[in-house]
This record gives sequence, structure tokens and C-alpha cells, in this order.
Amino acid sequence: MSKPFKRILLTGAAGGLGKILRDRIKPWADVVRLSDIGDMGEAREGEEIVRCDLSDKPAVLKLLEGVDAVLHFGGISTESNFEAIMAANIQGTYNLYEGAHKAGTRRIIFASSNHAIGFHKVTEVLDADSPTRPDSMYGISKVFGEQLARYYFDRTGIETVCLRIGSSFPEPKNPRMMRTWLSYDDLVEALRCSLMAPRVGHAILYGQSNNEAVWWDNSKAAFIGFKPKDSSEQFKHLFPDTGVYPDKDDAATTYQGGGFVNDGPQYI
Amino acid sequence: MSKPFKRILLTGAAGGLGKILRDRIKPWADVVRLSDIGDMGEAREGEEIVRCDLSDKPAVLKLLEGVDAVLHFGGISTESNFEAIMAANIQGTYNLYEGAHKAGTRRIIFASSNHAIGFHKVTEVLDADSPTRPDSMYGISKVFGEQLARYYFDRTGIETVCLRIGSSFPEPKNPRMMRTWLSYDDLVEALRCSLMAPRVGHAILYGQSNNEAVWWDNSKAAFIGFKPKDSSEQFKHLFPDTGVYPDKDDAATTYQGGGFVNDGPQYI
Amino acid sequence: MSKPFKRILLTGAAGGLGKILRDRIKPWADVVRLSDIGDMGEAREGEEIVRCDLSDKPAVLKLLEGVDAVLHFGGISTESNFEAIMAANIQGTYNLYEGAHKAGTRRIIFASSNHAIGFHKVTEVLDADSPTRPDSMYGISKVFGEQLARYYFDRTGIETVCLRIGSSFPEPKNPRMMRTWLSYDDLVEALRCSLMAPRVGHAILYGQSNNEAVWWDNSKAAFIGFKPKDSSEQFKHLFPDTGVYPDKDDAATTYQGGGFVNDGPQYI
Amino acid sequence: MSKPFKRILLTGAAGGLGKILRDRIKPWADVVRLSDIGDMGEAREGEEIVRCDLSDKPAVLKLLEGVDAVLHFGGISTESNFEAIMAANIQGTYNLYEGAHKAGTRRIIFASSNHAIGFHKVTEVLDADSPTRPDSMYGISKVFGEQLARYYFDRTGIETVCLRIGSSFPEPKNPRMMRTWLSYDDLVEALRCSLMAPRVGHAILYGQSNNEAVWWDNSKAAFIGFKPKDSSEQFKHLFPDTGVYPDKDDAATTYQGGGFVNDGPQYI
Amino acid sequence: MSKPFKRILLTGAAGGLGKILRDRIKPWADVVRLSDIGDMGEAREGEEIVRCDLSDKPAVLKLLEGVDAVLHFGGISTESNFEAIMAANIQGTYNLYEGAHKAGTRRIIFASSNHAIGFHKVTEVLDADSPTRPDSMYGISKVFGEQLARYYFDRTGIETVCLRIGSSFPEPKNPRMMRTWLSYDDLVEALRCSLMAPRVGHAILYGQSNNEAVWWDNSKAAFIGFKPKDSSEQFKHLFPDTGVYPDKDDAATTYQGGGFVNDGPQYI
Amino acid sequence: MSKPFKRILLTGAAGGLGKILRDRIKPWADVVRLSDIGDMGEAREGEEIVRCDLSDKPAVLKLLEGVDAVLHFGGISTESNFEAIMAANIQGTYNLYEGAHKAGTRRIIFASSNHAIGFHKVTEVLDADSPTRPDSMYGISKVFGEQLARYYFDRTGIETVCLRIGSSFPEPKNPRMMRTWLSYDDLVEALRCSLMAPRVGHAILYGQSNNEAVWWDNSKAAFIGFKPKDSSEQFKHLFPDTGVYPDKDDAATTYQGGGFVNDGPQYI
Repeated sequence: MSKPFKRILLTGAAGGLGKILRDRIKPWADVVRLSDIGDMGEAREGEEIVRCDLSDKPAVLKLLEGVDAVLHFGGISTESNFEAIMAANIQGTYNLYEGAHKAGTRRIIFASSNHAIGFHKVTEVLDADSPTRPDSMYGISKVFGEQLARYYFDRTGIETVCLRIGSSFPEPKNPRMMRTWLSYDDLVEALRCSLMAPRVGHAILYGQSNNEAVWWDNSKAAFIGFKPKDSSEQFKHLFPDTGVYPDKDDAATTYQGGGFVNDGPQYI
Repeated sequence: MSKPFKRILLTGAAGGLGKILRDRIKPWADVVRLSDIGDMGEAREGEEIVRCDLSDKPAVLKLLEGVDAVLHFGGISTESNFEAIMAANIQGTYNLYEGAHKAGTRRIIFASSNHAIGFHKVTEVLDADSPTRPDSMYGISKVFGEQLARYYFDRTGIETVCLRIGSSFPEPKNPRMMRTWLSYDDLVEALRCSLMAPRVGHAILYGQSNNEAVWWDNSKAAFIGFKPKDSSEQFKHLFPDTGVYPDKDDAATTYQGGGFVNDGPQYI
Repeated sequence: MSKPFKRILLTGAAGGLGKILRDRIKPWADVVRLSDIGDMGEAREGEEIVRCDLSDKPAVLKLLEGVDAVLHFGGISTESNFEAIMAANIQGTYNLYEGAHKAGTRRIIFASSNHAIGFHKVTEVLDADSPTRPDSMYGISKVFGEQLARYYFDRTGIETVCLRIGSSFPEPKNPRMMRTWLSYDDLVEALRCSLMAPRVGHAILYGQSNNEAVWWDNSKAAFIGFKPKDSSEQFKHLFPDTGVYPDKDDAATTYQGGGFVNDGPQYI
Repeated sequence: MSKPFKRILLTGAAGGLGKILRDRIKPWADVVRLSDIGDMGEAREGEEIVRCDLSDKPAVLKLLEGVDAVLHFGGISTESNFEAIMAANIQGTYNLYEGAHKAGTRRIIFASSNHAIGFHKVTEVLDADSPTRPDSMYGISKVFGEQLARYYFDRTGIETVCLRIGSSFPEPKNPRMMRTWLSYDDLVEALRCSLMAPRVGHAILYGQSNNEAVWWDNSKAAFIGFKPKDSSEQFKHLFPDTGVYPDKDDAATTYQGGGFVNDGPQYI
Repeated sequence: MSKPFKRILLTGAAGGLGKILRDRIKPWADVVRLSDIGDMGEAREGEEIVRCDLSDKPAVLKLLEGVDAVLHFGGISTESNFEAIMAANIQGTYNLYEGAHKAGTRRIIFASSNHAIGFHKVTEVLDADSPTRPDSMYGISKVFGEQLARYYFDRTGIETVCLRIGSSFPEPKNPRMMRTWLSYDDLVEALRCSLMAPRVGHAILYGQSNNEAVWWDNSKAAFIGFKPKDSSEQFKHLFPDTGVYPDKDDAATTYQGGGFVNDGPQYI
Repeated sequence: MSKPFKRILLTGAAGGLGKILRDRIKPWADVVRLSDIGDMGEAREGEEIVRCDLSDKPAVLKLLEGVDAVLHFGGISTESNFEAIMAANIQGTYNLYEGAHKAGTRRIIFASSNHAIGFHKVTEVLDADSPTRPDSMYGISKVFGEQLARYYFDRTGIETVCLRIGSSFPEPKNPRMMRTWLSYDDLVEALRCSLMAPRVGHAILYGQSNNEAVWWDNSKAAFIGFKPKDSSEQFKHLFPDTGVYPDKDDAATTYQGGGFVNDGPQYI
């Protein structure tokens, strides 16, 4: 049986999530084109390897040729100095969309981040219409990407799902991640739904598993059909209940962005 | 044990859904009065058959006599020319409410339709307060019925649940119906909840099963207690994932109304 | 200097407001086509007189030929029995839009009414997004017209401003009209702005002068640019302050529709 | 293993819910301090008994000493005359917060009530932002408590979860409670989540089980993580479906507060 | 010519605003009944003097006899210790409403305060639906009064306008009052509109003049018709522009309540 | 008399609006520091001239030293290729905020643009909370600047008013500008209010005169106190009423951004 797509591009294929996705997305395309600034090893069956710096515009334009859909996980995925983020995430994402536009690519799943809204308090519940409040240069670059996607949709019709990923790891590493955890299976399911839905326009989807306590409400993205199946409750024993409350003025537990709100411009 | 109602009227009893409901609603009333413009066969036990054209006011006034509650499935249930729709759905529904008012009927479940909101995009999630955007003369007649019901509630206290039915068939017939499907069991349950809730006022309830991807959010009708149990996921194999996206300007996949948005006034 | 439009159609030209408008709108079009079911006298310079029953579809289709824009004031303008309202306001408005569609007319100003929202309380302030709550068969027919206009815009691009007229008389006739009064000058200005704005899409505009106490907020129609210049304050002496409050259960002073809320289906 | 808290104070320990909670909350604290105006029997292991009238300020200030967190179930829990309610619920709750402020207590779970919003209709679905509409002097005192908590949070940082309890009994006693029922297990779970969440700020949480038909939507409190596990459906047989609708003007079935809306100031 | 009301009661007649109002409201009633805990001097023509402690229930019940409408300016009008505020503002306002209910009084204008919402930031613009965030015990007592009024309207139909007075003085005393200033003329006009509007239900009206910069939006109270005529701009010279910004953490300039937010429970 | 500020920095001083502002802002500061990449002529009394490329980080850090407040009009002010915009507007604005942070500057007025929201339709009325929909690379860079400002406020407390300037010219140049026009006097007043308000936090203010028809509603910025005094009505004769409607699919008259929506990535 033929696969849904002829060619999907995965950027950031050598990154933490990129490695996880590399095998999981194979059923979706005859060819998976993998891209990263770092080493990705040998191409396996059904793979194309294209080493590429996203800030290199001609290279990125070429990278998009023949691509039906993109999973854009490339760029810098944590706080860094502004110039590095500008090159990789701002110039890089511009290059990607411009390449997609020239190549006729129809849909992009953009790995955005909860750090686009990290300066909201942990006692708020956000949805797709909540204003962005980035908590870092990294977060600002993610808002830039979401807005660039908004523009390309309004102007050219390229559809994007902006997946605001919480914390996608094998298991939660701290109490905050009990709320923000996104299991790998649920990440893959979010991507599958985002790629396969007939139309998505320009959508915001929060990437979180079916955890008990959460900060994000996906009801405005119900047309995508993402229903997470895992829950961080299985890891509850790792963080037993405690009556010790964080200090009233502790920013990292006050804001959704956690430690990011403390790593501002002055730290590099 | 006695049944909840003495007499329920089902209009449109010879129609597609009417036939399904004919047996399913028996446990709710000592007598089920069936009405249609077409042939309904012989009356069975606990049934009364009243053949009736809804646009015939005196006949409809008589039809309502002795009726406790109505399931109003009668009229034209697809796009047609305006004059036919006006007679059956506009004059007809007016006759029905006027009859209910005169007969002292307390509650009506009105078979409204997703075509009352069909010109919203498939990338929107609607709730009971979303503005109506009909996609057809048929859809306009359903908005008319909902507004007429609004008036009769404000003026006389007759309660109505406007059930905006998605696609109620044995199984989804196309990818759109994976989102809009309402199983027969869930249809019956929606009617049961709507009839049995102590008060419903003038309510809007979307008629959809517990499908994965949906366009409609029933949280503002939580007081009715309708919790669908089926899901279109069981039919997923009929419409396998495909990376072929609909054309950017294809109206039938852009708007919730599907093909209806293409069947406007000029087509007859 | 040439006038903006070649031909404007005014329906209801023999009605109360029609007579007022007949002379006031002349500067806007080379030809003003006047239509009514009643006698309109002789055609004056720059006028065409077409006597026409709006419920007569062929006649209405013909009426629209060569028309650039419509001021639709025709039909029944007060509560009546449903059948009369259905013929004049429902069939009639359908005929008008169908005629406009066939004739290529680009814009219609629809004389809607506050009775489309008359079952809201006088202690509410409504805007363009407030749900409709008609207070009469007449009000229901106005909601029908607004929704028909919504459909024709979504489907064909014909633009409509639905002008929900308050009380347009030489002066307020009762205390309620101190709130709902729309001077003739302001009515004309509302029509002028609605006709001349480059784009209006499908818009809801409340027709009220700059009265002190009001129930309607036009801020969502600010793109039309209607700024009323008159105020009912000049007639304040007609209704001096009084400490006599209406009875708690008096519907006519509880709801915005005033006396209309008491003139329901049973009254004819 | 040590318990989360050193000392939790439960006020109202001799009341209906207080008795239920007395044993259920033991796993949360080394010491449970119990307080009531009435007799609480002997202190058991891990308990401290402090008989105390909440309107006695010095006594309450002392009561709070050494307390980490409070479950405030004390005061009058039904309609009464205003003076009694003012002493127990207004002066009493003020004393409690002032004591908590002086003692450095960090969090209070305040047993608020659905009667803080009882004059909303049963055809509305409320969330944490819906305006309060108290249905009784009792309900007014609960709004007072919620606002006092709001002030203490804004001013001093004491966190409060206002738990608007529906009907917490072994089983529903009437059809209304099919909607408002909160099982004891779910009550305990709501308290546990409210106490253990890292931050709650000033939060409103509705106390209801996972019943089919409900009036309250907790999605804005998703950060607390309360997911009820019981449902009133298990008691459905107690209140079989009936086609008998309540009278149009019957206040007790029109408003969420039920019978409370009939027990106003004049009744004592 | 007869005056609108037979008898209006003004409580707090010896207070700052009470003295101003004493003469200004005479045209509205044949008899103005004045009440205060303090000395009000001799009764002048058209006046009745009733010295009365609002916390004395029998006295207050008697005070309301024969009263058509109330301007409730009595009680404590600044921060104080809780017990004093409870007696004057909580017990006192309860007594007033209970008296009004027994006497058949139809409308009350309640002198509420901006301190009911003082913990909102000065960079927010509030309207009638904004949640209350009191900044003091005084502010909490005003929220109590508003909610009590809400209850009496829902239960008995007594109408109340809650006038959230900003700063009503001859002229602004500090830069904050440039925003919150309410001239005496505008205060009188707000009261007049609130008394004379045919229906007001339970309304929230902000008491501010037509100042340039403001924090409060009265558009949801447009049905009352209050249009302030004065502006603090005439006093601009008193507070010339300065580039000195308040300290980032200065509460008194951060929150709308100004200095009140610093005068919490610990200050007495 | 001393001026409010010691030193204000105006970037973009050689640009169209910069030249206008150069003299108009003198009364606000002892020293006006002027900066531009282009020639600014000689420094006049009370001026400092610093020629500077905003993309040169060390130069910009130095530029901010000793600056109390900034009017940030520098960078590219129309659509251009992305790389040029990234250097001037993205890197440049980052440099400016980083410089302000290091220098202890307390407030920035950021010349944002209506092109940050240009892909909204001309039949919508936007306010400060409307989602951004940039119409160009230029517009995206303005959204970036607004979000950067949001971050710096949340993180460091630097306050920003984002002034979304409409069309600031001596007079409107086309019919669109009748809606978007901002007179020079009103521009100066908007800046004055934004600088002198005690607190502004992170605010969005639309820069438009008091024109009759408008697309933007500043009511959520009422705390700033900007009340425009001019109106484009004085230029009405330049664009007489015409009955010629733009083509249904003409983007430049459909969207608020006007011609910008046609000048996308492909045009350079």
C-alpha cells in the first residue's frame, strides 16, 4: 500500500526529538528527507540526508525542493544569545517558509514552544487565543515563527500547525513537567493529526499529554482531532505530595515558563 | 410501569430519520403520534398515524391536540427551491409552534441542522453562541425555525432544544462525515436527554458523536447531559490517511457545510 | 457634476419613511427608482415609478434590472398576522435578493428593526454580535432578512448593511423613544454612510441618534463611519422626570421591544 | 514516611462534612487540628481538639498558631437569619484570615457554596469567571468569604481555593442533586488537589462529581488537576425519567440554587 | 409643578458628600429625609432630620418608612478596623435593604467605591463586568453591599445602581485624582440619571467625570444615560508633566486603589 | 521652568516623521538626542546628534547611555527584503532594548504600525487584544518589536507604548487614509500622553485621528489619555462619494493593510 506523502522533510533530525521522530514518521512518506546542521549518520532505506545550516538561504531553498510537507524541528531549542537565535530561528525559519513557498509545499508543522507563552502565570489556563508572552529570546523567536506562518498562510495559503510543545521526554524530570509532559507517543500522534487533517489553516495546538493538572486548553483546535492517550500520572511516585510551598516571589514556579523566566538577556 | 409521556408527536415519520426513530422512541410515551406528508404504513400498537401536510395550518393545529412533546423532524431536509422550503419549513414550522401554543404543549425538540452554520470554516470550533451563517435556503429555514422557537419561549414559555444534527447515517459516507457523524444510538440519546431534562429553556445542542476531530463544542449545553458514546473512529479504515490536500479554493472542503455551499440559489 | 450612482432602488417608497427619503436621496443617483405596493403619485424628475408587490417574484426580478444599489424599506413594517408577513417580508425579501443577484446589484441597505432584538431587557446594552431575540412575527421576519443577507454575502458577495432602525419620527412619542429615537437627518446620514463606504461586507448597524441614554453600541460598525448628530434631549421637556416606576412585571417597559412584546401570535 | 504537612486545621469538624473529613485527611498531616463550636468527642491519635467559636477573634487568632494550611468548613452552612450568619460566617471568616496572616499560614481551602451563584438559571453553564448571584444570606456570606480571600491574596499572598460545593451527601436526595452531587471521595480528592498543587493563587473550583448533566465548567481551574471519578448516574434509578415538567414560574426549579431561592429574608 | 418623588432618603447626610448633596437634590422630592449618625443641624424647608445609627436595625426599619427612593451615602467611607466597618457598612447596609424591602421602597442608589476594584492595575480599563478586587476592608464592605443589592433585586425586585465613586472633591488633590475625579455637578447628574431612568435593574456605574485619561468604561451602563460634563483637564496646571516615573514596585501607583492598597489589616 | 526629561532619544530622526518630531518634542527634554543612519545636519540648541546604524550593537549600547526615554522611530519603515528588515528592525530593535536595559532607561515609545494587523479585513474593528496578522515582512518586524517589548517589560520592567501608527502625513493621499489618517498634531499628542502617563506597562495604542470612519478602537488604552483632536473630514472634498465599489476580490481594499498585502516576498 502506498504511503500518504511522497516526501516529508524533517528538520533538526539530529536533535533530541528529531532522533525520536526519525523512525516514527516513516509510515507517513515514501521518502523522509532529514536535515540538520549536525551529523545524522548514514541514510537508511527511504531516507534522504541533507546536511544544511538553516541560516544558509540558498541551501534551504534547495532543501525544500520536492517536499510535500515539513516537520520543522530545526534551529536552536533552548535559550541562547540573541544573535545565534536570530540566525538559526529567525533567518532560518524565514528561509524555510520562503523555500516552501517557492517549492509549492502545502503544509508545515512548526515545533513551537510553551516558552512563547511562558510569562503567563501557572494559575492561568490558556487557549489558542491567549496573547503570547515569551519568556526568553528563544520564546520570542518562536512567536516570530508563528507570526511568519500566519503571514504565509494569509498571503500564500501554506498551512501551518504551530505545535507549542510542553516537555517531551521519556518521563517528567521535575514537578513542573507533571503538568507540561508530552509523551513521545502523544507527540507522534499530534504530528500525525496535524499532517493528516484535511485543512488546518493557521492553527495553534498545545503539545501536552492527558495529564491531570494542565495549563493549556486545546478545545479551539478540536478540528485537528488530537486526543493524547498518555498521562504523567504514571510518574506520580517520582514527585510525592508535599506541603512545602514555593516562595511567594519565586519566578520559576510562578510563571509557566519555569526556569526560563530567570535566564534573560543578561545571562550570556 | 407507566411511560414518561402520554403522547409524543413525531413529525417527518416517513423520512430517513423518522423511520429510525419510530421504534426507538416508544418507551417514552404511551402513545406516539406519527405524522408525515408521505405514507407511513399501518399504525402499530401504541401508535397514531396522522397524515398531514405541515403547510396546512388547520390540519397542523389539529395534529397538536393532546400532545405533550414534539420531535419535529418534518419538512424538507435538504436544499430545494425557496418556495418549497418556505411552505414546508417556514410556514410548516410556524404552524407547528402555533399549534403547540394553542394545545398547551410544553416542549419541542427541533431537528435543526449544521447547515444553519455551514458557512463557518472547518478550522473553526463553534459553540452555542457562535453566530449563524447558513449555507443554503435549507439552512436559512433552520435558522428561521430556531428564531421562531426563541420567540415562542420568550413569549409563551414553550421550551425548545434545537438539535443541530451533523450527519446521521449508519456510517460516515465521506471524510467530512468522520467529523460530523451522529450515530443512531447517539441521536436517540440526544433526544432522550433533551426531552427528559427538567428545564431546557431555548437551547442549542450540536448533534455529533464522540468523534476524534470535531467542529462543535457542546459545553454550553452541559445542563442537558448529552454524552455521546459512539465514535466515527470505528470507520477510520474507510478513509485512510492521505497526503493529498484539497485545493486552496475548494469551497466544499473549506466550509463546514460541505457540498451545500456550492448548491446555491442558481442551481434550480 | 455626476452623481455617485446611476440608479438606486427605494422599495416601500409610499411608506412613512419612504416618503421622507424620496427627496432626500436624490443627490446620490442619476435615477431613483421608486417601488411600492401602494400609490406613489407621479414620477418627478430623476425618478422612475414601478408599482410592484414584493411577493410577486417575476415582477421583483424585473424591478431590480439596472439597479446599482437598493434601499429596502418595503414590506410590512409592524406586527401583523404571520401569513401576511411571510408573503411581504419573507418571500418579498427573498425575491429582492434573488433579483439583485441576477441583476448584478452590489449593495443593499436593509431596513431591519430593533424588533429583531426586542426581547432583550432595557438594562442591557447590545452590539452587533448580541444574539437576536425577536419580539414579534415582524421581528422574526427581520431576522430572516438579516440571515438571508448573510447568506447572499457569503455565497455571492452582495454586501448588506442591516440597519436596525429604532424609532424614526419627527419627535419621540413616548419615554421609550427618548432612547430609540432616530431623527430623519440621522437616518439619511446612516444610509449615506452605508452606501458610500468602500466595503461593508455583512454589517449590523443600529439606527439611533446621539441620545443620552441608549441601549445599542455601534462601536463594531465604526468602519461605516456613521456619527449621528441629533439627540432626543431637545425633546426632554415632553417627558419630564418622574419618580413613578413601572410595575415590576410590566413587559412593555422591561424589554427593549416595548409594546411589541405584548402583541404576540394570539392577537390577530 | 513523613506526611506532607505538619499541621492542618479543619474548622467545622463536628459538622456533616467535617465528620466525614476527620478521618480522610489524616494522611496529609502529622497533626490534624480540629475545631468546632460543638462537641467533637475525644482527640484521637494525631489529632488536636480546639473547641472554638469562630466569631471569637482572640480564640481564632490562637487557633491558627502553628497551622500550615486550613480546610475552612466552619460557620453556618445553610440559610439563617442575617445576624447569626454575620457572626459566624463574616466575622468568623475575617478572624480566620487575620489569624492565618498573623500565623504565617500559606494556604486555605474555603468551603464556599453553589449558593454564591444560585440565582443563575439552570439553563446556564457557569465557570470561574461568571458573576456571583447569591440566592440567600448564606450565599452572600460565601461571596464575602471569596472576596476576603481575594483581598488577602492580593495583599499578603495567602493562597485560597474557593471550593463551591454542590451537594455532598452519600447519594442525591432529589433530581436537582443528580446535577450537583459531589461524592465524598470526590470531595476528598478536590481538597487533596487544592492543597497539594504547587500554586493556586486565588482560585474558584466547583465541587461536583463527574455527573452527566452539570451546570458548572471547571476548565479554568485545570491547573489544580481535580478530576472527579464518581457520577450520579449510579443513582439514576432513584429518579426515573418523567414527562412532567415543572411549572413555568417555579423558582426552585428555574434557578441553580433550588429551594434556597425561596427562603429569603422574610422567612425567619 | 410637583416634584418627581414624594420622599427621598439621603443617608450619610452629615458626611462630606452628604453635605454637598443636601441642597442639590431638593428639586427631586417633596421631602428629603436626611439621616446620619452625626449632627445635621436644623431641618430646613422640605427636610426631615432623622438621626440614626445604621447598625441599629429597628431604627433603620423605621427610617425607611414612607421612602420612595434612597441615596445611600451612610456608613464609614474610608479604611478602618474591620469590626467598625462590619457594624456600619455590613450590618448597616443589610438593615437598609431590609427596611426598604419592608417599606416597599423601589430603588436605591448605593454609594459604592472604586476601592471595590482597587487591586486592578492602573494599566487596565475596567467595565461593569470586570471582577471585583477590593483593596481594603472598606472595599470589601462595598463589594458586600453590591452583592446584597444583587440579591435583593433577584429576590424582591428592588432596583439598585451601584455608583462606584472615584474621587469626588472640589478639585483633584494628586495626579491619581486627575484620572478618578468626579466633579460635584457630575456626581449630582449621575444620581439624577440613576434615579430617573425608568428601569435600572442591578447596575454598576463608575463615577468619574469626562477626564482625559481614565480607567473605567461605562459603556455597559449606557441605558442609564449618564454623560459627565466636567473634566479634570481644567486642573492640569496643578500637576505638570514630569519625566519622573514611580518606582517599579510602588504599590500605590501600580494599583487603581492608590494609597489604600498599603493600608491593610496590619495598620490598626 | 525645567523640562520633564533630562534626555530623550529620538531614533530615525532623519526620516519622514523624525523630521517633523525633531522640533515638536523639544519642550519635553533638556536634551534631545537625535540618531539616524542618514544625515541629520547640524545639532541645534538642546540637541545631540549621534549618527548610528541600529544594527551595530556596540554603537547602540553607547547611544542609550544617559537616556531617560526613547521615541523609537528608526529602522526601515516600509516593505523591503527580509534581510534588510532583519538587520534594521529585528537586530536593531533588540540592540535598542538591550541598550535601554543596560542604561536603566525606563520607557520606550515604539513606532509600531498598522501593518502589524494589516491582514484583518476593513469590515472589522480591532482593539488592543485583537490578534496580530502582519501583512508584510515589515509588519512581521513590528510584531517582533512589540513582543520584544512585552518580554522586556515582563522581565525587566521597561515600559513600552506600542503606537500602531496609521497614516501620518499632512493630509490623506487616498480614500483608505481617510480612515487611517493621523495628523502630525495628534501624533505629537499621542507621544506626549505615552511619555507622561505615570504608568503604561506594555500597552498597544492605535495612532489615528478622530476620523469619522475608523477600524481601530482605543478604549482599552484609555488609561493613557490620548484624545485626538483632528479629523480627516476636513479633507472629504478630496475623495468625493462614489457608487463605484471595488472588485470583490481586490485584496488592497479588502484588508486593512491596503497595498501592502500585495507586496509580499516575491516582489523583490
